[in-house]
Amino acid sequence: MTIPSTTRQWILNSKPTSTPILFSPSHPEPTFIPQSNPLPPLTPTTALLQTLYISNDPAQRGQMSALVDPARLYVPPMTLHAPVRAYTISRVLESGNPALLAPGTIVLATTSWSEYAIVEINDVEVLDPERTPGVGISHYMGSFGLPGLTALYALREVVKLKKGERVVVSGAAGAVGGMVVQIAKKVMGADEVIGIAGTDEKCRWVEGLGADVCLNYKKEGFEEELWKATEGFVDVYFDNVGGHILDLMLLRVKRHGRIAASGTIANYNRDEDRIALKNFYEVVTNRLSVLGFIIFDYRDHFPDARAELIQAWKDGKLVVDDATETVVEAKFEDIPGVWMKLFDGSNTGKLTTKLAE
Amino acid sequence: MTIPSTTRQWILNSKPTSTPILFSPSHPEPTFIPQSNPLPPLTPTTALLQTLYISNDPAQRGQMSALVDPARLYVPPMTLHAPVRAYTISRVLESGNPALLAPGTIVLATTSWSEYAIVEINDVEVLDPERTPGVGISHYMGSFGLPGLTALYALREVVKLKKGERVVVSGAAGAVGGMVVQIAKKVMGADEVIGIAGTDEKCRWVEGLGADVCLNYKKEGFEEELWKATEGFVDVYFDNVGGHILDLMLLRVKRHGRIAASGTIANYNRDEDRIALKNFYEVVTNRLSVLGFIIFDYRDHFPDARAELIQAWKDGKLVVDDATETVVEAKFEDIPGVWMKLFDGSNTGKLTTKLAE
Repeated sequence: MTIPSTTRQWILNSKPTSTPILFSPSHPEPTFIPQSNPLPPLTPTTALLQTLYISNDPAQRGQMSALVDPARLYVPPMTLHAPVRAYTISRVLESGNPALLAPGTIVLATTSWSEYAIVEINDVEVLDPERTPGVGISHYMGSFGLPGLTALYALREVVKLKKGERVVVSGAAGAVGGMVVQIAKKVMGADEVIGIAGTDEKCRWVEGLGADVCLNYKKEGFEEELWKATEGFVDVYFDNVGGHILDLMLLRVKRHGRIAASGTIANYNRDEDRIALKNFYEVVTNRLSVLGFIIFDYRDHFPDARAELIQAWKDGKLVVDDATETVVEAKFEDIPGVWMKLFDGSNTGKLTTKLAE
Repeated sequence: MTIPSTTRQWILNSKPTSTPILFSPSHPEPTFIPQSNPLPPLTPTTALLQTLYISNDPAQRGQMSALVDPARLYVPPMTLHAPVRAYTISRVLESGNPALLAPGTIVLATTSWSEYAIVEINDVEVLDPERTPGVGISHYMGSFGLPGLTALYALREVVKLKKGERVVVSGAAGAVGGMVVQIAKKVMGADEVIGIAGTDEKCRWVEGLGADVCLNYKKEGFEEELWKATEGFVDVYFDNVGGHILDLMLLRVKRHGRIAASGTIANYNRDEDRIALKNFYEVVTNRLSVLGFIIFDYRDHFPDARAELIQAWKDGKLVVDDATETVVEAKFEDIPGVWMKLFDGSNTGKLTTKLAE
């Protein structure tokens, strides 16, 4: 293949405060606009990558708007008029140091919504699919990637789930949620796992992963069903969504129970209109521990934790297959639109964009 | 003195949903009404008490309305049309078992807004003022009572305050808050203690206890002052109030910081209109631990913890004197009105009603 000297890329054109606006030539202020830009020349420390898979992460939304004090952010905000930052699986096309990183190598790298990118060789992680013959490399961004590591870390190190406990997990059909269901039930021996998701179809998928029951929060009667399912109260609530469901669950976690505060997707497109919590007093009266965490604090343990997940899969305790991720084959033009599916609730498991073979 | 056979007592006449309504003969539905009722006869396991001091506790408010699921309450709700439950210092007038509890003994007891009460002897705690010659017995309901124990327990066991850390405490002029200021700064070696209270006068009192600075949240410019005082962020926030100040402090506790969720007085008269939290996402992004607790979980440690507080006072590390409590000499008729002062912010330190000598 010819080595490209330019790349198409999606640029952050304006900071969204609610739902991002997709590009159309007639819209005056879309959130993202496509550009074609020259690639900088290689140096002895850089490599040229071709993007194969793009990870779609709810957290990117917060990094786009970043209305808050930058000192409070765990990842720097995205730069306006720069390419939209993204985590990818890419192929090395050309290397400034072939001895260190050979052309053809498959890597995990933080680049952007671009077809090609120049990266520092030291910043990429070489992906070794030999470790998991039989599963696609895209799972290194899902079940064996940050979502899987997040689920494992939070259950074990943050809320310290014990055998025999009862767990509720929201966003249960999402990348993290699906792994929470599987790990809690099949690896850590939870007595009961109750999922919450946004469609009946997703709920059946969640139950297929091992949840005892999954409730559709968009369905009438959800609140009563949740009350019935959590009778006697639960030990742990794994919160991927924040907002109204967190507010309800503050009433359903038992005395001295724990809440893993993992994400607040319910508010990601509501920067100026966040859903407020009314039931916080329950934290006091029932002595709840609400424990925020970010997987990056656990970075030193990634290799061991990933090996553990892969071993659990080899032992037949975890299902990691085509049915546990949503890979969308897309053209460059579709990248923002696929990412937006995170917020309309159409994916089950990790949502990944496949850009090239 | 003659042994009474009846007592005057304040009855919970209706469950409040906002600010309780004081009795007046013309109001159709006051929250509390006075009655005169016969006292039950003594048995070999009971004693007749005369109320000397009444503890005024914000938590009583929640027990009056108790709109929530009773399974979620840590103290049973108060019974409608029964006397208003209260913690008191009382004198034994007559005893069903004088060998076990002699007349004249001073005790701590949960009774009610009554002049006299019959209690189970096993349920009272004999108060031994010999332990602290030089301080009034009312401090056994304040600095050496549950508020002092709450401050010590939460700082040491819940948020695990370390020497050199920075602490913010709200409700700093209250019974718990004042002790948090003193214990954090003078016993546990906090580097900086920032109080938040509701008047300038209270703030000077809080600074007198040892706070480096105290900010008046009712003053214009409070938010900017708080931002300045907490520059670089603080390690621990001790929350006695909930509501808006908690929401602000979610933005000012540093990464991996801890919040002691001790009380939510901002919402105690707003059962159906609670102040909602908008900044909860900070728990995730900055990995905060929000730790609810109730002092009763610590009951086994009360004697040791109280001895420790008294020792710190003897060592000159804690100020416990007339200036660290607000004792209101009151007649029976005034009991509800004095209690309501908790919510108009007129007390500094523990608010105690003195009914008899």
